[in-house]
Amino acid sequence: MILRPFLLLAFLTGAAAADDARPTMASVLEASEPADWRPLQDDDVLYLQLASGRVVVEMAPAFAPQHVANVRQLVRDKYFDGLAIVRSQDNYVAQWGDPESETDAARPFGKASATLPAEFFRDANGVPFHPIDSRDAYAKEVGFVNGFPAARDSATGDVWLLHCYGMVGVGRDTDADSGNGSSLYVVTGHAPRHLDRNVTLIGRVIDGMELLTTLPRGTGPLGFYESAAERVPLRQVRLGSELPKDQRLQVERLRTDTETFDRLVASRRYRAEDWFANPVDAIEVCNVPLPSRPTGSSVP
Amino acid sequence: MILRPFLLLAFLTGAAAADDARPTMASVLEASEPADWRPLQDDDVLYLQLASGRVVVEMAPAFAPQHVANVRQLVRDKYFDGLAIVRSQDNYVAQWGDPESETDAARPFGKASATLPAEFFRDANGVPFHPIDSRDAYAKEVGFVNGFPAARDSATGDVWLLHCYGMVGVGRDTDADSGNGSSLYVVTGHAPRHLDRNVTLIGRVIDGMELLTTLPRGTGPLGFYESAAERVPLRQVRLGSELPKDQRLQVERLRTDTETFDRLVASRRYRAEDWFANPVDAIEVCNVPLPSRPTGSSVP
Repeated sequence: MILRPFLLLAFLTGAAAADDARPTMASVLEASEPADWRPLQDDDVLYLQLASGRVVVEMAPAFAPQHVANVRQLVRDKYFDGLAIVRSQDNYVAQWGDPESETDAARPFGKASATLPAEFFRDANGVPFHPIDSRDAYAKEVGFVNGFPAARDSATGDVWLLHCYGMVGVGRDTDADSGNGSSLYVVTGHAPRHLDRNVTLIGRVIDGMELLTTLPRGTGPLGFYESAAERVPLRQVRLGSELPKDQRLQVERLRTDTETFDRLVASRRYRAEDWFANPVDAIEVCNVPLPSRPTGSSVP
Repeated sequence: MILRPFLLLAFLTGAAAADDARPTMASVLEASEPADWRPLQDDDVLYLQLASGRVVVEMAPAFAPQHVANVRQLVRDKYFDGLAIVRSQDNYVAQWGDPESETDAARPFGKASATLPAEFFRDANGVPFHPIDSRDAYAKEVGFVNGFPAARDSATGDVWLLHCYGMVGVGRDTDADSGNGSSLYVVTGHAPRHLDRNVTLIGRVIDGMELLTTLPRGTGPLGFYESAAERVPLRQVRLGSELPKDQRLQVERLRTDTETFDRLVASRRYRAEDWFANPVDAIEVCNVPLPSRPTGSSVP
């Protein structure tokens, strides 16, 4: 009897035999060295506690220094504690913040800034951009910087983060400088890359993503929840540096500036697993996996 | 007070003023003619009844005639009734079929075929391929055929459907010819385009997608549910032609071979809504929306 419901198994596990000359992701990770992995920086990590579990966001201060600093300030002031996820729009974003932000009951920002200059892109000078070979619909050159998907334009000298699945951005109004990080959204569907360079991206969900993607979709316009009861409370939001060490996520992330990473990308461009009848030998930047492993592990 | 949680409103509604020379999606749809819309063919439409509601799939017999015919046979024989969604893997797929397919208790296929030749691509001859201007990571030329995202290779003379969000494919084992449509999956995350030409795609979810995307993720390998209790029963699956007329989805779909559609694509390439600080003037094929409207409606 054919393993019908388990179709697609072969090409996602390392179990299937592969052409020796063509590594699989599993074989690449197995051959990785400790130096191919990087630790998390505790001050760059947000922990969002929901009733259903914990969502972990790695922030990218190199791209959005002012917004990341403001988010850190808001977190330290416990601004987010007791606020809520206010929106879930299918194939698009989930978003959290202050449901009362438009009213007199809006929570004050305290020492944090109420608005900030947009950080949609930055000068590519000095940024360790690691390109990949990919024909991209939206940018001339795509790759990775410090573990985040990014694009570069050598004509303008700019580099910017990309709206791939799981990326976290700063809510804003029509004015480009109207955001401050008090309302954040995460991409939960196909990459809305037209938002690139139109929003300040501050990081990416690296754990607990399924807690956000499985949220009921809001029935209001743009997926906003129509009643307070539908909103999903944020019990607390903390920085890694605020948590006891044993409560921090104990993972390391694959570096994206190594030969091992290049081999991983190659293994996903050409899928050598037996299941693939027609490997395409191409990849789109948002389809490049960014693996984590338990800290200090010698296996993926 | 800034409308913080409602950020991103402007660029998704037609409300924002736009450059007159640059239409928005809303203005394009408002200007559409009845001939820009097409009805559903009842024999091409699958209705999956779950406890939570109804999922509607439009099938693409032009691309997978044998698989679509087999699925119709299975549906008419009530093969799917009482089976289940067996898998939900985050940022990838949800899948349904017979949980007992590997056991002696597997449900028999009756008059339907147990296996079928792969229908991964087809001869482009005679296929009304409507290209769009898009630089694609995976294919030389992308566009639409009869409302479905597709690619074409003039060198090989092939055309095939694309694994965009919501597309429905046929589960198979390692053997390319091992599927028969009794196990189907739907893309619930970023488009896994490396599966193109490796799986027979049979259609797309056109209604009720959120019922599939919000399913709890399975905790087994590849997102399979680990216990019978976690599986989501398929109460019944019917063709439109089997349902009373008033129970069929009363929508028409925007045609993808018209000047109106070209204008819609243009409106999504260059986002003229005020919110956009940096319209990119580019689009990726899976980001082209495929609107429905109530049958006979004069407004979108």
